[in-house]
Amino acid sequence: MRTARLEAFSDGVLAFIITIMVLELQRPTGSTLHALLGDPLKGLFTYLLSFVYIGIYWSNHHHMFQLVRRVDGAILWANLGLLFFLSLVPYSTSWMDAHGGATVPVTVYGVNLLGAALAYYVLQQAIFRAEGPQSLLRQALGRDLKGKLSPVIYIVGIVGSLVSVWVGIVAYVAVAVIWLVPDRRAERFINAHLVPED
Amino acid sequence: MRTARLEAFSDGVLAFIITIMVLELQRPTGSTLHALLGDPLKGLFTYLLSFVYIGIYWSNHHHMFQLVRRVDGAILWANLGLLFFLSLVPYSTSWMDAHGGATVPVTVYGVNLLGAALAYYVLQQAIFRAEGPQSLLRQALGRDLKGKLSPVIYIVGIVGSLVSVWVGIVAYVAVAVIWLVPDRRAERFINAHLVPED
Amino acid sequence: MRTARLEAFSDGVLAFIITIMVLELQRPTGSTLHALLGDPLKGLFTYLLSFVYIGIYWSNHHHMFQLVRRVDGAILWANLGLLFFLSLVPYSTSWMDAHGGATVPVTVYGVNLLGAALAYYVLQQAIFRAEGPQSLLRQALGRDLKGKLSPVIYIVGIVGSLVSVWVGIVAYVAVAVIWLVPDRRAERFINAHLVPED
Amino acid sequence: MRTARLEAFSDGVLAFIITIMVLELQRPTGSTLHALLGDPLKGLFTYLLSFVYIGIYWSNHHHMFQLVRRVDGAILWANLGLLFFLSLVPYSTSWMDAHGGATVPVTVYGVNLLGAALAYYVLQQAIFRAEGPQSLLRQALGRDLKGKLSPVIYIVGIVGSLVSVWVGIVAYVAVAVIWLVPDRRAERFINAHLVPED
Repeated sequence: MRTARLEAFSDGVLAFIITIMVLELQRPTGSTLHALLGDPLKGLFTYLLSFVYIGIYWSNHHHMFQLVRRVDGAILWANLGLLFFLSLVPYSTSWMDAHGGATVPVTVYGVNLLGAALAYYVLQQAIFRAEGPQSLLRQALGRDLKGKLSPVIYIVGIVGSLVSVWVGIVAYVAVAVIWLVPDRRAERFINAHLVPED
Repeated sequence: MRTARLEAFSDGVLAFIITIMVLELQRPTGSTLHALLGDPLKGLFTYLLSFVYIGIYWSNHHHMFQLVRRVDGAILWANLGLLFFLSLVPYSTSWMDAHGGATVPVTVYGVNLLGAALAYYVLQQAIFRAEGPQSLLRQALGRDLKGKLSPVIYIVGIVGSLVSVWVGIVAYVAVAVIWLVPDRRAERFINAHLVPED
Repeated sequence: MRTARLEAFSDGVLAFIITIMVLELQRPTGSTLHALLGDPLKGLFTYLLSFVYIGIYWSNHHHMFQLVRRVDGAILWANLGLLFFLSLVPYSTSWMDAHGGATVPVTVYGVNLLGAALAYYVLQQAIFRAEGPQSLLRQALGRDLKGKLSPVIYIVGIVGSLVSVWVGIVAYVAVAVIWLVPDRRAERFINAHLVPED
Repeated sequence: MRTARLEAFSDGVLAFIITIMVLELQRPTGSTLHALLGDPLKGLFTYLLSFVYIGIYWSNHHHMFQLVRRVDGAILWANLGLLFFLSLVPYSTSWMDAHGGATVPVTVYGVNLLGAALAYYVLQQAIFRAEGPQSLLRQALGRDLKGKLSPVIYIVGIVGSLVSVWVGIVAYVAVAVIWLVPDRRAERFINAHLVPED
């Protein structure tokens, strides 16, 4: 089975998730600047955060599947697992939004992000298993420091949010920033080891 | 007519259906864990069930069209018929959700799944008819035990749900589990009979 | 400019339009069969009608662009014009739905369908102009009886609906049925004149 | 990294944005023509304006990436930045709609359009930087008069809307009209300098 249709389907789901959140943004209750700058502005920031997260996953997914040759049933379902957790991001984002400073929604948002990170890890393992020791992806990832650090920061954020929601929010933003720094590993590897396909 | 655009369109519709359901998930009415663990958690389980069903259909659709060479008008409309029944899944899911333990919504959910299964069967027949006796798909399917068993279990679930909704729910979960066990028929057939196209 | 991305974008928009209507379907107000068989069932029939219409446009669009070699700015905007009118179908469908037997919504639904038919005609003309007298599409369409008949029936339906909504509904269903009869013109032409591209 | 998947993902997001706005259109509160011709008709005009804007961006995006050979991380994130601002268009459109003649929503709609224009400029710069002095896009754009004029008109519209909303609306419509006049630069350049890829 080739990767093309799995990528196309994932693109469709991720394109949908990344834009669906705008439907859930709280509308200002009046037509004044003041009405916009309250809860709706807070909503815009959480939208931006979730948008960046989905963007990071799309970008990493994109890089990852450039190094995958063939797809089996396990990869297909691990991919659907990742999409499942990411599809819950609009849900947990809007719950967090509706209860500005409340503890539990901020904690649950972190659990959602952690779930997605674990699903991504499972997907990587499924690819390793399918491709064996000479997996290009495994070589390209190297020590995968970011991949190992992220769940730790999520857990700090989840536990910390029970004390103060700001610990959680800082942790979630921190992971996004770490990944926003462009991940050149796969790119460098592709340039070095693979013949360009123009 | 080639299969590429039919597959792309189906992918778009299925990607949309699989994520649209998250819009319909009941939001917790407060910001406590208790508010999340009641009806919203039940909603999450039905979302997961429907997500898995759409995932199974996408995966089977994907395998099926790898064995189809050309598309005619009958295949195109049989495919739209399947998409119609699957597009109703978010609707019947949310109705079931809104009335937790009620009989009729659980029964109707099963009717929806049965309708999708029959539409899938009709699509298979349209492909057989278009490709004649040497159809690769027909050879790959073999006896198609799963395909024949599923409608029977659905009917047991639909009728049983009139006695107890749990009979229905167990039946619908059972069919999903049967299909989740990866379907290696098409994969094995592709590996054995077709030259890889890298 | 090649047709591939125009087709992919149109597929995305049409996939979205065809499924978005399910979000607008009226939910039953209770959990009984009686609650389902009233307004929601009427809604299901209008959903089916609009689903079939979008399916017909997707299928015709698909056939049409198999006979188009290159896309210019006029074709691109004529295509967006068609997508605009089709994107209003969920809107006019849900208005018709919300006011079961009312005259004006049924009339406006017909105006929407007529607008889409005219936009499709404009798109055909843009393709003819871009490709000149040897346009494959022009040859394939021949006299285009269906294309000429449909606006007439729409106008009969629109005017007739002012007397009785049933005249409108029968007219709209009639056009759908005419097009559902598979349109073999393009298919026959492709088979006869073009080398298969496997 | 090739441009194919970036284009496919952008197409998905833009297809979603362009159609999502129809979900936000105000439904007529009755079934009379009068109910349709009030606020809903105004909503239809703003929908049309935003539809045309997204159509322009899709068309320009399409032309631009035909001249791009390879994508790096900076281009990928600049593209996501553009999609972010465009994804806010349904939000600012619906706010403007909900408060017909109010100043602030009209101003904010202009700020949203200006943000998208700046994000598009940043994306162009990222492509220039990645491709160096021999960038095909840079040569094709030439002096880019439209690209330089648009932000000026937006700013006039934004500031002017504080005096009268009509200044804003005229400015936003004017920019759309400027771009609707088909942009032949890229097309002409492609025809002149690149070998057709049929």
